[in-house]
Amino acid sequence: MNKEKEKVLNEFKDHVRKMSLLGGTIALLDWDSRVYMPEKGVANRGESLGYLAGEFHKLNVSPKVKEFVDAFSKENDLDNVTSAMLRGTKKQYEISLKIPAAWEEEYSILCTNSSSAWRKAKSTGDFEVFRPHLEKIVDMKFQYLKLLGCNEKGYDVLLDDFESGITVEKLDELFGELRDGIVDLLNKIKNSKTQINDSILNVTVPKETQIKLCNFILEKMGFDFEAGRMDETEHPFTTSFSNKDVRITNHYYENDFTNALFSAIHEGGHAIYEQDIPDSLENTGVNSAASLGVHESQSRFYENIIGRSYEFWEYFYPEIQKEIPEFKNVSLEEFYKTINKVQPSLIRTSSDELTYSLHIIIRYEIEKALIEGKIQVKDLPIVWNTKYKEYLGIEPKNNSEGVLQDTHWADGTIGYFPSYALGNLYGAQFLNTMLKDIPNVYEELSKGNLDSIHKWLRENVHEYGAIYTPSELIKKVTGEELTAKYFLQYLNKKYSNIYNL
Amino acid sequence: MNKEKEKVLNEFKDHVRKMSLLGGTIALLDWDSRVYMPEKGVANRGESLGYLAGEFHKLNVSPKVKEFVDAFSKENDLDNVTSAMLRGTKKQYEISLKIPAAWEEEYSILCTNSSSAWRKAKSTGDFEVFRPHLEKIVDMKFQYLKLLGCNEKGYDVLLDDFESGITVEKLDELFGELRDGIVDLLNKIKNSKTQINDSILNVTVPKETQIKLCNFILEKMGFDFEAGRMDETEHPFTTSFSNKDVRITNHYYENDFTNALFSAIHEGGHAIYEQDIPDSLENTGVNSAASLGVHESQSRFYENIIGRSYEFWEYFYPEIQKEIPEFKNVSLEEFYKTINKVQPSLIRTSSDELTYSLHIIIRYEIEKALIEGKIQVKDLPIVWNTKYKEYLGIEPKNNSEGVLQDTHWADGTIGYFPSYALGNLYGAQFLNTMLKDIPNVYEELSKGNLDSIHKWLRENVHEYGAIYTPSELIKKVTGEELTAKYFLQYLNKKYSNIYNL
Repeated sequence: MNKEKEKVLNEFKDHVRKMSLLGGTIALLDWDSRVYMPEKGVANRGESLGYLAGEFHKLNVSPKVKEFVDAFSKENDLDNVTSAMLRGTKKQYEISLKIPAAWEEEYSILCTNSSSAWRKAKSTGDFEVFRPHLEKIVDMKFQYLKLLGCNEKGYDVLLDDFESGITVEKLDELFGELRDGIVDLLNKIKNSKTQINDSILNVTVPKETQIKLCNFILEKMGFDFEAGRMDETEHPFTTSFSNKDVRITNHYYENDFTNALFSAIHEGGHAIYEQDIPDSLENTGVNSAASLGVHESQSRFYENIIGRSYEFWEYFYPEIQKEIPEFKNVSLEEFYKTINKVQPSLIRTSSDELTYSLHIIIRYEIEKALIEGKIQVKDLPIVWNTKYKEYLGIEPKNNSEGVLQDTHWADGTIGYFPSYALGNLYGAQFLNTMLKDIPNVYEELSKGNLDSIHKWLRENVHEYGAIYTPSELIKKVTGEELTAKYFLQYLNKKYSNIYNL
Repeated sequence: MNKEKEKVLNEFKDHVRKMSLLGGTIALLDWDSRVYMPEKGVANRGESLGYLAGEFHKLNVSPKVKEFVDAFSKENDLDNVTSAMLRGTKKQYEISLKIPAAWEEEYSILCTNSSSAWRKAKSTGDFEVFRPHLEKIVDMKFQYLKLLGCNEKGYDVLLDDFESGITVEKLDELFGELRDGIVDLLNKIKNSKTQINDSILNVTVPKETQIKLCNFILEKMGFDFEAGRMDETEHPFTTSFSNKDVRITNHYYENDFTNALFSAIHEGGHAIYEQDIPDSLENTGVNSAASLGVHESQSRFYENIIGRSYEFWEYFYPEIQKEIPEFKNVSLEEFYKTINKVQPSLIRTSSDELTYSLHIIIRYEIEKALIEGKIQVKDLPIVWNTKYKEYLGIEPKNNSEGVLQDTHWADGTIGYFPSYALGNLYGAQFLNTMLKDIPNVYEELSKGNLDSIHKWLRENVHEYGAIYTPSELIKKVTGEELTAKYFLQYLNKKYSNIYNL
């Protein structure tokens, strides 16, 4: 690289550093608005976030960015990090050029107000309180697509924001195979003679005990509490301001303690990924996950493949027995089966591992139909309830346990949901390779040693940050393109064993 | 105002709105770093705050500001708010022109790191851990004064940042009178036959009970919990991001419950001021207190004049008796005397109302000597301990209860401390006028009705925000310049009664 180019690169790196610091600032304001902000603070917070989003936009379309993109676009021998910076920057720059700061600012304010309205709507079940906000969000997404000059395949464009390279065509294929496989297995389970009685989970566990258990598991997973924390919100999430400040949240139901446990493991999986991003990538813009789907692969890998395995509980179940007296005379086998009971249910976040993907496929189909203009926001409660009836055989009694259950649309994220199911596919495909590399994974797990798993994930996935695209990464790690095969194999093996199929 | 000027004014107002939003953002990052940030987050937070301080500086020296100052400086018929905006802007602009963004950024990073070092130093009592940071802070303050072209009376310049118009000359006069008056009264008390036994305060009160009592009192004071919150930190403070999001913090000592009570009342006084700033002033830059001294007048008014009055506890003491069984058989008179016991002590924040000002005068003298170059940072522990011995007759056993006790210097604030004692003077002078306007204040208070007091303060002080300078405000409200007379009268009356002088 000649001196001139080196200068452009260094100036660009400083520019990206500022963007990263501003991005972290926005993330903190957002975190605070969900966790600790008093109710009346919402309007001013919306203004602040709107202003900061506008400033972020200005950085996005700065001449520094154009200078960098122009200087490096035709360069062939870039190192990995510069190459990833260029890829991410170019994509974002081209969008930002077309999307005016005013749109960003308006959207940001809209989302803050919409989240607040959603919280009220959810607490009463009144969809009408939330409807006008979601209508505006969808309208603005249409504006967004129009501004990008996108006349068809709009949903592909929205999906690409979360999972680079994914399309409706590919998802229809992956999700089609996934749905058929799950429905097939679900039918076998319905016909199985094995009945799992999960009434043992109906115990009251004080919030403090739940927090204690979550902290214990998170420590063992390798979550660094000096570089992170866990707070309480309505809907659990993970956010990070740097690899040294990664925050998760949780929600505690006194009558459903496993909900918080699995949420902690799930968010812990996200958080470990963020904490493992190497210092060398900090504030480069490459200090993030390869994609949302790969991010979800880590959370769902920990939550299900690890956290719902028999071996995991060989080590952790005695802790449950120690803290919750009702479990003293319940065997590990019984506990293991109850936490893996297949039972179509209404709430995505507390659904079982098998039917979970059906919840996602419903949301995927609704988003696709919304953006393709085949349904309207006002139709959502009916469409939602109909699909739940059709796919899961059950129907919400109210919108709080139906269409209002998730925070995503209220926050303005459309196209995110598929990432969760993609995460399942990535995760099982990683597992398949991990088992070849370290055959005694499950043995280690049964001793409460999660370090070799963490190390494998760190070295194969986490440490690369966003250097590779998701499809590059999965090929690099597993030697194959993403497929539903390994996840279906994993599900079949697991549930055949549990349900004696 | 002609159309051209109106345009300049409107553009300037929008500019100030952005500064206010950015200022609120910086305040939130600062709040978070003290309340919830994980330990390892400190370096990145320092970088973020440094970057944002640089951006704030850019807004401060923007051509928009110059345009406004130039256009309006010779205008005579400005409304109150525009006039206050002009005054504040002009002052800040002239400073910012001389202080480069690089200085601001460096200072901001320095203060974040210094606060972190101070926390470590305080926990171990090791001044050496903190010393190099404080030396850099003092060095940078000297640089600051040099950049401003200030060759003498440097401490006046630093004081002016917190209390517009105050000088060493005026403070020497006010504090001289105050010290003589307090020492005189203190000697009378020492010779009094009345002995107050405060051993009844040596009870263990769980944190949860303390929080409950604090919340109860704050509600009664009129603190709006929907527009604010209370968290836990080592050192209590108040911060606000708008009049709808005002946050206080507290610290709970299980063996010294009145500490948290009076801290809550103190910070509550600050917070009510911020919450009472009218919406019309929001994001104008005038949406702040008249000065730090006037801010402290409100906190100390509530903490002492109200919160340590007999009448206040006529209403609230039964709550103490209900929550803390040890007080069931302690009379109100006895409790009242114990919370007003005069006892020279080491910790400023838990010192009694009478000797408190001596703690401030010590800090004032140390800061003055530091900035006048008469002492060095390395001398601080010795100077501190010597002055405590001299003025209060007691000496710290370690630096944690000595020179390391306050967060102010660690946060880079030099010139702030005098505000606390000035607050005492303002507060007593306000009381003198309030009693003329509403003679039954104490009767209302004994019924737990704090509304008429709150209303008087809102209408006479809070609602003006920073429209008036502190000296304009005190003259407007009380008809006189600031004097130590009323505070000394108040102290004499109160302690003559308690100690039968």
